[in-house]
Amino acid sequence: MRMYDLIEKKKLGQELSTEEIYDIINGYTKGEIPDYQISALLMAICFNGMNVRERYDLTMAMRDSGDILDLSSIDGVKIDKHSTGGVGDKVTLVLGPIIASIGVPVAKMSGRGLGHTGGTIDKLEAFPGFNGALSEEEFINQVNSIKIAVTGQSKNLAPADKKLYALRDVTATVDEISLITGSIMSKKLAAGTDAIVLDVTVGDGAFMKNKESALELAKSMVDIGKRADKKIAAVLTNMDEPLGYAVGNNLEVIEAIEALKGNGPEDLMEVVYALGSQMIVFSGIETDKAKARILMEKAVADGSAYAKFIEFIKAQGGDASYIENLEKFVPAKYVIPVEAKEDGYVHALKAEAFGLASMSLGGGRETFDDVIDMSVGIVLNKKVGDFVKAGEAICYIHANDQKKAEHAEEMIRNATVVSPDKCDHMTLIIDTVE
Amino acid sequence: MRMYDLIEKKKLGQELSTEEIYDIINGYTKGEIPDYQISALLMAICFNGMNVRERYDLTMAMRDSGDILDLSSIDGVKIDKHSTGGVGDKVTLVLGPIIASIGVPVAKMSGRGLGHTGGTIDKLEAFPGFNGALSEEEFINQVNSIKIAVTGQSKNLAPADKKLYALRDVTATVDEISLITGSIMSKKLAAGTDAIVLDVTVGDGAFMKNKESALELAKSMVDIGKRADKKIAAVLTNMDEPLGYAVGNNLEVIEAIEALKGNGPEDLMEVVYALGSQMIVFSGIETDKAKARILMEKAVADGSAYAKFIEFIKAQGGDASYIENLEKFVPAKYVIPVEAKEDGYVHALKAEAFGLASMSLGGGRETFDDVIDMSVGIVLNKKVGDFVKAGEAICYIHANDQKKAEHAEEMIRNATVVSPDKCDHMTLIIDTVE
Repeated sequence: MRMYDLIEKKKLGQELSTEEIYDIINGYTKGEIPDYQISALLMAICFNGMNVRERYDLTMAMRDSGDILDLSSIDGVKIDKHSTGGVGDKVTLVLGPIIASIGVPVAKMSGRGLGHTGGTIDKLEAFPGFNGALSEEEFINQVNSIKIAVTGQSKNLAPADKKLYALRDVTATVDEISLITGSIMSKKLAAGTDAIVLDVTVGDGAFMKNKESALELAKSMVDIGKRADKKIAAVLTNMDEPLGYAVGNNLEVIEAIEALKGNGPEDLMEVVYALGSQMIVFSGIETDKAKARILMEKAVADGSAYAKFIEFIKAQGGDASYIENLEKFVPAKYVIPVEAKEDGYVHALKAEAFGLASMSLGGGRETFDDVIDMSVGIVLNKKVGDFVKAGEAICYIHANDQKKAEHAEEMIRNATVVSPDKCDHMTLIIDTVE
Repeated sequence: MRMYDLIEKKKLGQELSTEEIYDIINGYTKGEIPDYQISALLMAICFNGMNVRERYDLTMAMRDSGDILDLSSIDGVKIDKHSTGGVGDKVTLVLGPIIASIGVPVAKMSGRGLGHTGGTIDKLEAFPGFNGALSEEEFINQVNSIKIAVTGQSKNLAPADKKLYALRDVTATVDEISLITGSIMSKKLAAGTDAIVLDVTVGDGAFMKNKESALELAKSMVDIGKRADKKIAAVLTNMDEPLGYAVGNNLEVIEAIEALKGNGPEDLMEVVYALGSQMIVFSGIETDKAKARILMEKAVADGSAYAKFIEFIKAQGGDASYIENLEKFVPAKYVIPVEAKEDGYVHALKAEAFGLASMSLGGGRETFDDVIDMSVGIVLNKKVGDFVKAGEAICYIHANDQKKAEHAEEMIRNATVVSPDKCDHMTLIIDTVE
């Protein structure tokens, strides 16, 4: 069947067959189908969607477009964790060592990515000497010996997704549920774990702006994961304000270390415990989520999670002395308070603007060629629901350039709402889909 | 504004501004906007459409992408006639000489085109020596001296349409009313006439398969023409069966000559008179359509239309002896009857299949490199509503290749319905939009 007919079919709201979906994905990956036909098809999908069978085929065709990792030589149940993205998201840095210290193998492939801050690998490179490019053998051996390893993506995983995502990104076809599902799940399935726990963020700083759309996406991904015989669950978490207090690379690493020492912000720990307890249950170490949570709290309280983090950084060649001497992280030149103009309760700290402000300070990448400034960012002094006095800092801007700091301050002021009325703290865990 | 945002805007069902539409058309024509963004936009337009203001802007932006002809040195009201295409459509060959003989200037630019048969220029080249590539000066002088000239398109008219059409043709975005309107009307407005009469065909062999969609397209084009200060009307004509009896190049030329001699098939003449009377009224020669039709009938009856055709062919260097000696046209090698298998009334002669059969015999072009076989085609012996006896010919296939003839016969048999029930002849003029 000609590509023309397949575009027409989807335009008319008809179902594409398994064979047709594979032909499209294979043809596009090989460069046999031109961009302009795929973008027309993508737009038709934005209007007419894909049913669950089509989504599954799309996901599997994309997964099969490249390598599929074989993690069978790692002992135990391998579990991947994925977040749909947020501002101040240092969950992996905290969650990984905690569950590894309990015995759950953490074999994490992590991208560098574009965004408000660097990816997990970028942040781990804050430790001088850290090797974020392990060989497959090193990676597997390390997980078997100390239960945790994090490495940059080395294999050719789901190349169809790379090509499709680049096209969606310039044709306004990013926000359709089937396409998002295929994009995320094809990579997760190619990563070869036995179980997947998804952190689906909801709100101002997330891709999904409201609960309804986030729930739809979560259900769609969980459904595809189950069809592919994976243990899978999704937790919907609030991303209206930044997670925790720190936004920025070194600032987030420091906050994560503090969290492992037992000084973690309440909202961050809520998310860590919700995702982690699900992962522990999937691992079979504990069958009850509440009991799994207690295991995690204990691992933080008794220092074993913190010790695991040190062990992990050392194992990958990083200078662990930074962990015990946080002042070793080179600070930004300027630390500028953003002060409240009047007494009141904080009603909003719009996450997206804080992310963009961090990016404008130099903390993120707009293109893959950009160099990340590790020291810049924003540290909140107040969270939504807190009372703030006039003149008191709402947050601190960490900057290396005064002009950029002024620009960031303006962005932050526009994204901050203080008013005399009382206001609740945010609820972090919105829903769970299993 | 970025192209991304304009795609998003149309995807959300919002209106594009005049400036935005010009930016898109200019950017695409210049090659600054890639195909894959335009095809995504086209698909979004297929779902969300364009309002009348947007359609007008699209048409004008496309018109302005190339040259606009200046016909001011031709005396009188210049009128263009355009058909949305059909099978057996030799209307221009008959209509042109009739109204020229009455004094309406016929300054016709005609393409070669792709399709079931050649374009008007291809058919006129059936007369040896016919020059279908007049200079602008020759063209204008001839219209002023004998009221009729037909030439191939020489100027760079609406290049945006050429580029857009080629993209629509491979991305299943051909059939949307705003895009069709922009495509047709941009070329008509660039052709520089004072008035336009549109033949919007409806039915099996037409682009518009039903009256509703044809009426919508007719109204849309008439609306845009009026906004551009043109006199304009559209006539909806039936294209369920081929128009007249002949399908194929020489065969249609012969039928057209017979029509000019007063032996035209009733259905063909209905269409010729409906379009022509509208053109005569636009010219100001007559104010009443019924009276205009009488003028045309008279021009056929008294031989002045036929004489005008001879004058026209001679003026462009064609061998007019063919007109008076139709046997000079080289016939096809084989003339094969397709006989009825039982007595009955003809209920359907599905036009599209007859067109494709003619094409498969070699009578049309699939690509611009194809050479047309002028002698092949199909001549009907019966029309819908006629009674046919078993063994009597429904039509005759004119072929130069027996294998192709067999294939054509199969196509024709599948497109022909004969049954014992009585059946009306087709109504040719379905509606008029002014």
